[in-house]
Amino acid sequence: MAAVSLPLAALLPLLCGCVCVCACVRARACVRVQSCHATKPNLLNVHLVPHTHDDVGWLKTVDQYYYGDRNDIQHAGVQYILDSVVDQLLKNPDRRFIYVETAFFYRWWKRQSADVRRTVRRLVDEGRLEFVNGGWCMSDEATTHYSAVIDQMTMGLRFLNDTFGPCGRPRVAWHIDPFGHAREHASMFAQMGYDGFFFGRLDYQDRSRRRIAREQELLWRASDSLTPPMADLFTGILPNGYNPPEGFCWDQSCDDPPIRDDPDLEDYNVDDVVKRFLAIANTQAKVYKTNHIIMTMGSDFQYENANLWYKNLDKLIRYVNGRQANGSRVHALYSTPSCYLQELHRANLTWALKTDDFFPYADDAHDLWTGYFTSRPALKRYERISNGNLQTCNQLEILIKWPPYVVLPEKAMAVAQHHDAVSGTEKQHVADDYARRLAGGWLRCQVLVSNSLAALSGSTAERIYCDKLNVSVCPLTESSSKFSVNVYNPLARPVSWPVRLPVNGTSYKVSDAEGENKYSGDVVPLSAATRAVRRNRGFAVNELVFQARAPPLGFTTYSVSLLRDGPPAASTRRRTPTAGKPSRPSIYDCFLRVTFDPDTGLLSGLSNLETKQTIKLTQNFYWYNASDGNNSKSDQPSGAYIFRPNSSTPFVISRTAKTETVQEVRQWFSPWVSQVVRLHGDSRALELEWTVGPLPIDDDLGKEVITRLDSSIQTAEYFYTDSNGREILQRKKDFRPTWILRQSEPVAGNYYPINSRAFIKDEVDQLTVVTDRSQGGSSIQNGSLEIMLHRRLLYDDVRGVAEPLNETSALFPEGLVVRGRLLLSLDRPPTAADAHRPLAQQAVLGRWSPCLQFSGLQAALPPAVHLLTLTQWDEDSVLLRLEHQFQSRESKENSRPVTVNLQKLFSTLEILGASELNLSANQWKDEMKRFHWTPQTGM
Amino acid sequence: MAAVSLPLAALLPLLCGCVCVCACVRARACVRVQSCHATKPNLLNVHLVPHTHDDVGWLKTVDQYYYGDRNDIQHAGVQYILDSVVDQLLKNPDRRFIYVETAFFYRWWKRQSADVRRTVRRLVDEGRLEFVNGGWCMSDEATTHYSAVIDQMTMGLRFLNDTFGPCGRPRVAWHIDPFGHAREHASMFAQMGYDGFFFGRLDYQDRSRRRIAREQELLWRASDSLTPPMADLFTGILPNGYNPPEGFCWDQSCDDPPIRDDPDLEDYNVDDVVKRFLAIANTQAKVYKTNHIIMTMGSDFQYENANLWYKNLDKLIRYVNGRQANGSRVHALYSTPSCYLQELHRANLTWALKTDDFFPYADDAHDLWTGYFTSRPALKRYERISNGNLQTCNQLEILIKWPPYVVLPEKAMAVAQHHDAVSGTEKQHVADDYARRLAGGWLRCQVLVSNSLAALSGSTAERIYCDKLNVSVCPLTESSSKFSVNVYNPLARPVSWPVRLPVNGTSYKVSDAEGENKYSGDVVPLSAATRAVRRNRGFAVNELVFQARAPPLGFTTYSVSLLRDGPPAASTRRRTPTAGKPSRPSIYDCFLRVTFDPDTGLLSGLSNLETKQTIKLTQNFYWYNASDGNNSKSDQPSGAYIFRPNSSTPFVISRTAKTETVQEVRQWFSPWVSQVVRLHGDSRALELEWTVGPLPIDDDLGKEVITRLDSSIQTAEYFYTDSNGREILQRKKDFRPTWILRQSEPVAGNYYPINSRAFIKDEVDQLTVVTDRSQGGSSIQNGSLEIMLHRRLLYDDVRGVAEPLNETSALFPEGLVVRGRLLLSLDRPPTAADAHRPLAQQAVLGRWSPCLQFSGLQAALPPAVHLLTLTQWDEDSVLLRLEHQFQSRESKENSRPVTVNLQKLFSTLEILGASELNLSANQWKDEMKRFHWTPQTGM
Repeated sequence: MAAVSLPLAALLPLLCGCVCVCACVRARACVRVQSCHATKPNLLNVHLVPHTHDDVGWLKTVDQYYYGDRNDIQHAGVQYILDSVVDQLLKNPDRRFIYVETAFFYRWWKRQSADVRRTVRRLVDEGRLEFVNGGWCMSDEATTHYSAVIDQMTMGLRFLNDTFGPCGRPRVAWHIDPFGHAREHASMFAQMGYDGFFFGRLDYQDRSRRRIAREQELLWRASDSLTPPMADLFTGILPNGYNPPEGFCWDQSCDDPPIRDDPDLEDYNVDDVVKRFLAIANTQAKVYKTNHIIMTMGSDFQYENANLWYKNLDKLIRYVNGRQANGSRVHALYSTPSCYLQELHRANLTWALKTDDFFPYADDAHDLWTGYFTSRPALKRYERISNGNLQTCNQLEILIKWPPYVVLPEKAMAVAQHHDAVSGTEKQHVADDYARRLAGGWLRCQVLVSNSLAALSGSTAERIYCDKLNVSVCPLTESSSKFSVNVYNPLARPVSWPVRLPVNGTSYKVSDAEGENKYSGDVVPLSAATRAVRRNRGFAVNELVFQARAPPLGFTTYSVSLLRDGPPAASTRRRTPTAGKPSRPSIYDCFLRVTFDPDTGLLSGLSNLETKQTIKLTQNFYWYNASDGNNSKSDQPSGAYIFRPNSSTPFVISRTAKTETVQEVRQWFSPWVSQVVRLHGDSRALELEWTVGPLPIDDDLGKEVITRLDSSIQTAEYFYTDSNGREILQRKKDFRPTWILRQSEPVAGNYYPINSRAFIKDEVDQLTVVTDRSQGGSSIQNGSLEIMLHRRLLYDDVRGVAEPLNETSALFPEGLVVRGRLLLSLDRPPTAADAHRPLAQQAVLGRWSPCLQFSGLQAALPPAVHLLTLTQWDEDSVLLRLEHQFQSRESKENSRPVTVNLQKLFSTLEILGASELNLSANQWKDEMKRFHWTPQTGM
Repeated sequence: MAAVSLPLAALLPLLCGCVCVCACVRARACVRVQSCHATKPNLLNVHLVPHTHDDVGWLKTVDQYYYGDRNDIQHAGVQYILDSVVDQLLKNPDRRFIYVETAFFYRWWKRQSADVRRTVRRLVDEGRLEFVNGGWCMSDEATTHYSAVIDQMTMGLRFLNDTFGPCGRPRVAWHIDPFGHAREHASMFAQMGYDGFFFGRLDYQDRSRRRIAREQELLWRASDSLTPPMADLFTGILPNGYNPPEGFCWDQSCDDPPIRDDPDLEDYNVDDVVKRFLAIANTQAKVYKTNHIIMTMGSDFQYENANLWYKNLDKLIRYVNGRQANGSRVHALYSTPSCYLQELHRANLTWALKTDDFFPYADDAHDLWTGYFTSRPALKRYERISNGNLQTCNQLEILIKWPPYVVLPEKAMAVAQHHDAVSGTEKQHVADDYARRLAGGWLRCQVLVSNSLAALSGSTAERIYCDKLNVSVCPLTESSSKFSVNVYNPLARPVSWPVRLPVNGTSYKVSDAEGENKYSGDVVPLSAATRAVRRNRGFAVNELVFQARAPPLGFTTYSVSLLRDGPPAASTRRRTPTAGKPSRPSIYDCFLRVTFDPDTGLLSGLSNLETKQTIKLTQNFYWYNASDGNNSKSDQPSGAYIFRPNSSTPFVISRTAKTETVQEVRQWFSPWVSQVVRLHGDSRALELEWTVGPLPIDDDLGKEVITRLDSSIQTAEYFYTDSNGREILQRKKDFRPTWILRQSEPVAGNYYPINSRAFIKDEVDQLTVVTDRSQGGSSIQNGSLEIMLHRRLLYDDVRGVAEPLNETSALFPEGLVVRGRLLLSLDRPPTAADAHRPLAQQAVLGRWSPCLQFSGLQAALPPAVHLLTLTQWDEDSVLLRLEHQFQSRESKENSRPVTVNLQKLFSTLEILGASELNLSANQWKDEMKRFHWTPQTGM
């Protein structure tokens, strides 16, 4: 095969299929003997699905869960679950089990004997052990970026493919625990070839309505842009979360009465058990459409001693079905989600159609799971930049043809996608473990990058990584008078960044790769906030700032040399007009002008100088007083999961900001809130670098800090947030598209996840905010947009974590300080996406990592195409994902199909052939056959 | 075989071996491939013994434990333990397991498939699954009667014999949990053929001394009377109770870190685990004698998921032994108690000799486990009379040749012997369950007795059982003017009892079997105490009292007919002298005279009219104020297990008693303590029928009620109590025979179990008290003997029960009322046993159960011989146990060997042959070969 044309023929964006750049061997299909038990067409068939839900970290770390260590925290040992289930499946061929989290299965598998592996392969081939979902973890849906989700799914599914072949390929997506469900996840699952999707949690009002309407099984149309049924996903809402019906939990962790069927012993209870079961089954059948219902027989870390479950399930099935002889109309059977789904499909009904998402999730009137959108903001940022690192690493590995097996930080990134990882809803020691794993990944990555850059540049000079530039710490630049800076660009188009290096000199010469003194470099004194935050880890007094450019998928090198030493440069106010009171202070570059109120020091206006737009825009910081649970309406406190302010009106931290202007505007709101407002010549975005913390708690009040932008834009209660960093969903205050909302939490009930951006707009203006991590946010007033930045709480929210979200660390014993950036752009609505799409990709991936110039691409990709994945697959092939990053109708220019010539793409790779795969790279695209489902309302 | 001579040749009492009355088939011996793992002679061998300790009822009932029901109370399900262990044994032939409680194993076995049974037989034959102890339960040692213990052991061991043959016969007795150890138990175990005995609990001071002296393994000479080594038992004290060493508990119920040996995962800990293990092993080796040590790898209800244990033990053994290559001197191996014992035996050392017992048990200075000697006095009595019922039932079954399989109350009695059953240390609902089971046994027994009596008497008239005569309730006698009374005597000699029947008439004629009006029958008005206690269950106003006699192993019938109706007979004071103040009021018969203090109403003297002995004897009732734990010395409260009075001086309930004399002397001490003092013409014992309760607690003081006898006998701090109702042990205040006692609890530390009798004596007088149930008691002052009757406590004693011992019931919501009898005899010491031996047997067995005359024996057995067991064994044989019931030197007359002619024994059975078995009837006596052990001091 020569060059291939990407299937971007339709006028819509899509995650393009994977291209396996090699002559790939076709895998056999899973030829399975009919593994689903027979059902009875005239009876109510109850599909009993034995399952375990194994968090890839939560109260314990992933390794503690695997081994069963720290059972004092929570009794859970996954190694034993798998041991036990395999044993018990062998006892009775009727039994079934599903397994979900490949992170655990992989750990277990590699310790098994050839004999056990053979046995397990047989169980998989016979459908007795079925993998569902199958990603490395069950990812969070609110706070994960689609890029990392695709990676973790690919890693898990690949392991299953490699190990078990087609019979190991999951047919069903299974997100039984995540706290709300993102439309982009559904879209991805559809493109990964799943036939259906099951979950457990949704808004209690939504659940209630759907039960009555029998709409707990539905068809989710998960994209505005992809042609149905490309992103259609059959979705089933499980009857009881993911737990067994009440009274039927037979795990070692449960206390329900076992079936006592020995008439010689006391308390023979078979009649009672059967009676209760039939009652539950008949009640459940009333809220579903077909004569098939599902019961999830398992829960968190259950089946460690699978005998308890199976022994009683065997009896249950026998005794329940025994009643058919007496006229009972209920048939119980061991089943799996895919067997259940197959029956639903056979029913050949039409299904309610849904096009919005399942956020926010409330399990009661005052219990909104919208806090975790922001919980642990530092971990959320660390996860996001780790993703950038990983992509860089993957790319460099290919570009320099690294030896095939290098342990890359994929696993650390994959576990971090778990719904109690990046979500911020784990215990502190577990959050620390995730961060430690990511840090370990960075170290391995740095070795690879060093070697790559050495190979590409021919220079073996030692490379120092400046990981702490966010707090202006880098020992090398602080102490050297001459050094080189390597900058890598993982994007497929040239990008420029402002590079900020901590230095002690007052004047530097900066030369680019060609040795030209292209950039003089500004030196600005470090802000007081930065000096406070770095905690004696550095001693720089200044920052050297220069704009760096790097070629697509490539790096460049800058040489820096000291010109003048001495005291910090005097404050310059170059960009600040020094005019009298009437004229407003402002900063500006070629693209934007930002004005400030001279009385308050607050931002007061924003203008796009190209489009000649101007809006009034004030920005300030506030905090919501977190509910401590002492409340007449409900005793629910704010916690890691739940956001519940005591009042809908937040406290302002300061009505005024002290300001200092040193090229940038530095605002000081309180000892624990400050901000730097910056413009960069090359960028069309305004940067707001906020520093928040340590949040004071000596007043015994939990605090949830937001920044709020108040503009002159007429929002009419609408605002927009992205789904997993990809498509944009419209939100409306106090409104849900699919049911009539009774709003009981006026703030928390309007919060939505902001993964990479949010915007507000009217006919003429669109103000877009691009974030550097996942956060929660809303628009509570006309023209406003608020984003939650940091949370510090004094109470646990009673959802299992059993710790208040009260982050401290060795470095910050008095409370964590968090720093981040918001990038604001002001555009006309029809062209806003042309700005925010590339800006957001840059915010996700565009980290510069310190190396002379090189580009892996022959030329930049067109603006609509994002190079999502480029990673070594095996010795002779690489996995490439190209993405059309624009949504339908959002850009005149870019919302169009694009063709890319692969043959001409790379500068160092010769492409011998390519094959298209599904999104998760575990199936050939042309072999991907999904069930067809009919929506209730036409196609 | 014709008649056999019982092996009573020696001049000593013994439990005679069992006589299987049939031509018995010799069983094969257990030909086992060497099942013990090889040890290393030059290394320290650590015997790792995987085990579970499965209480036959404690916090949950026995059936709840079996099924794993009510796991909310305690997580425990024995069915799963056995499932799991069998599976895991199959995974690795090196693994070993021991099982103890046949009550559970039997339940499990009968539900297993032929396939599983085959597998288990193989495991047993190969020594991979080894039964130890093997009784139906692990009996309590303080509060059980030897007769019931032998029965429960026989039942369990027989099941193992029948099921597994000789390889299923336990070689080791294993009482890891009972709270102190009775010498009689050791004697029984020796006679049952056990090679050794292991336990976990002993006095902390004793433990401490034995550790230093390396005397935790010893030879227990368990009888003064039997010729060594007949009652010699090698005894090992386990190093850590019955738990694993700290940090090495890998059960699902434990939180110790598992072995994390995957270097790819975090926290590889193999080095740490091995280091800790070697340190523990070397420390332990210092306090034992040989280069073999044992570690009990298990605990309460562990191994429900045996994989956790075995997976980690496999690794432990591998990694520990792996260190031998680097010079480690420790060798770990899977083992069993019998494999360990075999190595100790091979060591061929001499062992410290012990002749006393291990009572009382203290696990700390103020933590004396002497409360349970009395806890739940009503249950203790119910258990005791149930034993009498069972023996009657067993005998009648044989005498009338009942169809082979009848469900008799053996199982209910067997589980009641458990160390948290009759001990009174279970939760209330479990105590209720034991009682319910015993009651169920009574019902089944009554059916059998009815049928037997009908067959023997030829009368099919309906039989009513008067179970509530202890509170003078019997609907038949209360309402009939003419009825018959059947009286059965389970003893092998003729016995007479006073029969007391509730009636409403004032005069009755009582005719015996021959129709002679032998007994006129006294009618006495019911006491106020009895009317209060019966709680509206009857309406009798009088009691008809007559002395009944029944032939050995036989019954007789009395006809009763009303002579005169009308108001209650006027109080008669026939036996009370009506003389003036100076002369002391008294009651007397031909044998005894009892005097009372006219001022106080208390007992003041006792005379034996035959021997012309007189002692001063006062008796009163007191209560110890139970410690609530608020104490400067220790926070230990009194509870179900522990007796800890706040002060060593008990409160007197009343210094005086109101008395009423109606043939008997009725004493009223308080609303909750009263007593009837009775003499019976035929008996040489004084009966004190006490009624205690409901103990008041509105003063928030827990109460432990005693009666104290204060006599003129010069006791010199010595007193005597029996061991399991058999041999007598000498006790001395504040003294232990084997170590120098630091007494920290002057009362509780001197309490000992009184199973059937206690006495005090000097050169000339012996005052013996025979009890009707197990109780605790002591002699704290010269000449005194106190017996604890009832306990009502407000705090739990923190030994697991988690309930205060505060008994109430539907009938007694304000607190349980308990009634019992003490039988006092005054004799010369050399002949006292001639009185108390038969008296105690009568108290244990001599219940009269309501039938014409019949005797199963051709003639009464000689006084020294007690017919202990007579029960159907299989269709053609019966099990007979004859006991020489006198201890050496305690009777001139009876402490001599006796020969019994079996051929002439029974009236209805023809004896075809007989074979002698060991005590527990699971081995031929002549095949019983036990290890020989050498004591340190000669033979």
